[in-house]
Amino acid sequence: MPSIQKILVANRGEIALRVMRSARELGIKTVAVYSEADRHALHVRFADEAVFIGPPPSAESYLRMEKIIDAARKTGADAIHPGYGFLSENEDFAKLVEDEGLIFIGPSAKAIELMGSKLAAKAAVAKFNVPLVPGTSEPITDVNNAKKIASEIGYPVLIKASAGGGGKGMRIVEDEKSFEEQMERAISEATSAFGDGSVFIEKYITKPRHIEFQIFGDTHGNVVHLFERECSIQRRHQKVVEEAPSSILTPEKRKAMGEAAINVAKSCGYYGAGTVEFILDDKLNFYFLEMNTRLQVEHPVTEEITGLDLVKLQIKIAEGNPIPFKQDELKINGHAVEVRVYAEDPSNNFLPDIGTLQTYNRPQGHGIRVDDGFEQGMSIPFYYDPMIAKLICHAEDRAGAIEKTIRAIDDYEITGLETTLGFCKFVMQHEAFRSGNFDTRFVENYFTPASLLPEANEDEELIASLLATTLLNGNGKATEETTIATPVSKWKKNRL
Amino acid sequence: MPSIQKILVANRGEIALRVMRSARELGIKTVAVYSEADRHALHVRFADEAVFIGPPPSAESYLRMEKIIDAARKTGADAIHPGYGFLSENEDFAKLVEDEGLIFIGPSAKAIELMGSKLAAKAAVAKFNVPLVPGTSEPITDVNNAKKIASEIGYPVLIKASAGGGGKGMRIVEDEKSFEEQMERAISEATSAFGDGSVFIEKYITKPRHIEFQIFGDTHGNVVHLFERECSIQRRHQKVVEEAPSSILTPEKRKAMGEAAINVAKSCGYYGAGTVEFILDDKLNFYFLEMNTRLQVEHPVTEEITGLDLVKLQIKIAEGNPIPFKQDELKINGHAVEVRVYAEDPSNNFLPDIGTLQTYNRPQGHGIRVDDGFEQGMSIPFYYDPMIAKLICHAEDRAGAIEKTIRAIDDYEITGLETTLGFCKFVMQHEAFRSGNFDTRFVENYFTPASLLPEANEDEELIASLLATTLLNGNGKATEETTIATPVSKWKKNRL
Repeated sequence: MPSIQKILVANRGEIALRVMRSARELGIKTVAVYSEADRHALHVRFADEAVFIGPPPSAESYLRMEKIIDAARKTGADAIHPGYGFLSENEDFAKLVEDEGLIFIGPSAKAIELMGSKLAAKAAVAKFNVPLVPGTSEPITDVNNAKKIASEIGYPVLIKASAGGGGKGMRIVEDEKSFEEQMERAISEATSAFGDGSVFIEKYITKPRHIEFQIFGDTHGNVVHLFERECSIQRRHQKVVEEAPSSILTPEKRKAMGEAAINVAKSCGYYGAGTVEFILDDKLNFYFLEMNTRLQVEHPVTEEITGLDLVKLQIKIAEGNPIPFKQDELKINGHAVEVRVYAEDPSNNFLPDIGTLQTYNRPQGHGIRVDDGFEQGMSIPFYYDPMIAKLICHAEDRAGAIEKTIRAIDDYEITGLETTLGFCKFVMQHEAFRSGNFDTRFVENYFTPASLLPEANEDEELIASLLATTLLNGNGKATEETTIATPVSKWKKNRL
Repeated sequence: MPSIQKILVANRGEIALRVMRSARELGIKTVAVYSEADRHALHVRFADEAVFIGPPPSAESYLRMEKIIDAARKTGADAIHPGYGFLSENEDFAKLVEDEGLIFIGPSAKAIELMGSKLAAKAAVAKFNVPLVPGTSEPITDVNNAKKIASEIGYPVLIKASAGGGGKGMRIVEDEKSFEEQMERAISEATSAFGDGSVFIEKYITKPRHIEFQIFGDTHGNVVHLFERECSIQRRHQKVVEEAPSSILTPEKRKAMGEAAINVAKSCGYYGAGTVEFILDDKLNFYFLEMNTRLQVEHPVTEEITGLDLVKLQIKIAEGNPIPFKQDELKINGHAVEVRVYAEDPSNNFLPDIGTLQTYNRPQGHGIRVDDGFEQGMSIPFYYDPMIAKLICHAEDRAGAIEKTIRAIDDYEITGLETTLGFCKFVMQHEAFRSGNFDTRFVENYFTPASLLPEANEDEELIASLLATTLLNGNGKATEETTIATPVSKWKKNRL
């Protein structure tokens, strides 16, 4: 069994730091790689060694496989951790790493490839009786045939271009009588957009929820799941708030979905950490969406409720060790919520708001964890994902985790740019979220820029009236007798 | 049942912040009190309101009951949390708070008083069959009588002045033949030091360990324990490293000690959070030492292994709620270690090293918690306990918690003053600690200032040889060709 001595982390930011911390706790040396834009980044300072790999954008550095292999060879690293994004789900990279005699801390290139193809993945998992969204598995063009299939699936159905993407050639059909017209429009749109008029028909999920299962496989054929993460709160189709466990799964449903997730992993001989994504309808029917063959951004909520360190587990498995526990030894402890702090302006369609962290003070306390890659005075680079931090709060129950998250958001002090913190507080305070009755359309359904306007409060009213009094009685000059009764500390309550 | 709306925290530093954070998560307003020395302290900034109560030292401010009551009345606080230290174990204060119609978040004045008296406490718990260190319960002066008692107890025994303190008039007697001589010396010392020659005789515990149990009682008569904390690593008879659970307790021993701890609480009709301290000998016989009738500095390790928020539990109980769980629903999850970061110089007898935090960067990551009351640029006030922070690390098992603590200590960046961090790393790396085979004499047995000298390492040797080469060949001038092969990042590995 190989024992890893030195890991090169082929990534940047919070996830590079995250991986290196666990490596260091295991007594393993770490190598950072960095682009010109990350010369002063924390992951570079934290690593035992650091290798420069080129300028931004990523295509010139973090995505350059040969530069990363070269850095590993130069520093004598014997394993590579890809983090998430960048090369983490690139089967060619996984293969190259292994061909070079290095350990890839992740699944086999074969599993990455299989799960990277939507059609191949669906075909593979179907053999293991994993439920798929009902629909056609082959592209079709015949309207009558399509109509027959649609009525078998049951309305509403979704028509989508087989060559599609970005919503083009996509139509929701509510009932049979409008089917033909919508299908013809979809074909016409698809033909003009992609030069290919063939479409898929599938069941349209109303009030969809996105729930994923963390799975782990080892090279001895064992697979377990580490329960689910609820990821339905999204903006621009990307997750921004996650929690574990989900508030809507019963123990029976959790068991059934966990078994399905394990079957997905078995369908591709999976080892390492992986995530099986499901979509659920409003009756909690669940369907396989896809498998992410890497560590997920939101993995900390699973760590908090299981007490396990997923990166250490990845490393142990990459060394060839079996998973050190059995499925029935795992238990959910409490509830965890993660909110992603992006340098984005929620009042402007969540567009990136790149800048410098003029003030940056993290919240603290029992059950609060901040995973980030920045400190005060640093700038968020223009070239990469604008995530500043992940704020993870763990408490005895869901209500406690939500209250802790609100408190932590209030205590988080960031100036110099707009962030998603205020939006995340809005989510935490919203009745739909608190009751658990929400779906992936939360933002569209409830959020407007006006949601972020602060409510008038007593202090402001008091100040306004004092100022007015001063202006009226003092000819615009404050006198020495003008005192404000409110303690100064009140003005600073969000500053710590 | 009263619902608390606003809590005044009659304390400062990390514990004031700790309490306020939980209050805020419960939607309760907070009031800070502060001395002149704490005008810019974080607990003042964090609170919703803050009231100035006088100059340092504590006797002029944090110990002035009437000023604190006055602050509560002025701000409309309906409850007072005393933290630890200061007025937390002062029965007069507890009584005064209640007489004023305010809620004291702590036990009854009666329980504080009873447990505050060593003799009365021992008499009370003895009725509940809680084991006490074998010895005399009354002071004696007669040598023959004392000798008879000593042989009943069994050697070695401890003779200590009944009026004593600070080790004066204290003698360890190894066997019967030296008893008379030692007793006479003890009486003579006690007479000259305290004007009272009477002594107690008790069993001398060899290789003593200090293990305490966290208990909680409510006003409905329920009492539970939240397992133990191992607190044997002490310097100057004060704890500096704590962990939960203890590495030496078997489940049977834990059960027996837990029941004894509950009996101690029952002996004084206890409600709220309390800690029952035991001393253990090298055969794991345990004896009641004393009960601390307040939240303990080291309570976070219990929070980490139980997932409970002890401050919230204190508040709920003070409101009159019953404890919301049963003893058999509690379970130990993983292992937690706390190291106390004091502004002290371990190489100079742990004397305070007051100064300014010129650099102050906290470690981060999964399972790491820092409870502190300072930020970069702040000074540690001369007037109070010089604790800067508590670093708490939680992992799946003891080995993991120790490795995480070492990593976190390495990542903790403090400049401007000496701290106990290096000493705590020494403890974590010491074989006696790692094996679990240690006692309260750990520091005396193993630690010398030389323990903190860094070992020579390859980098230093390399630099030394390069410098030597330059000096010899370059006439004392480094040339442009002089390069150092070691990556710069290596020099910074403890800086993040």
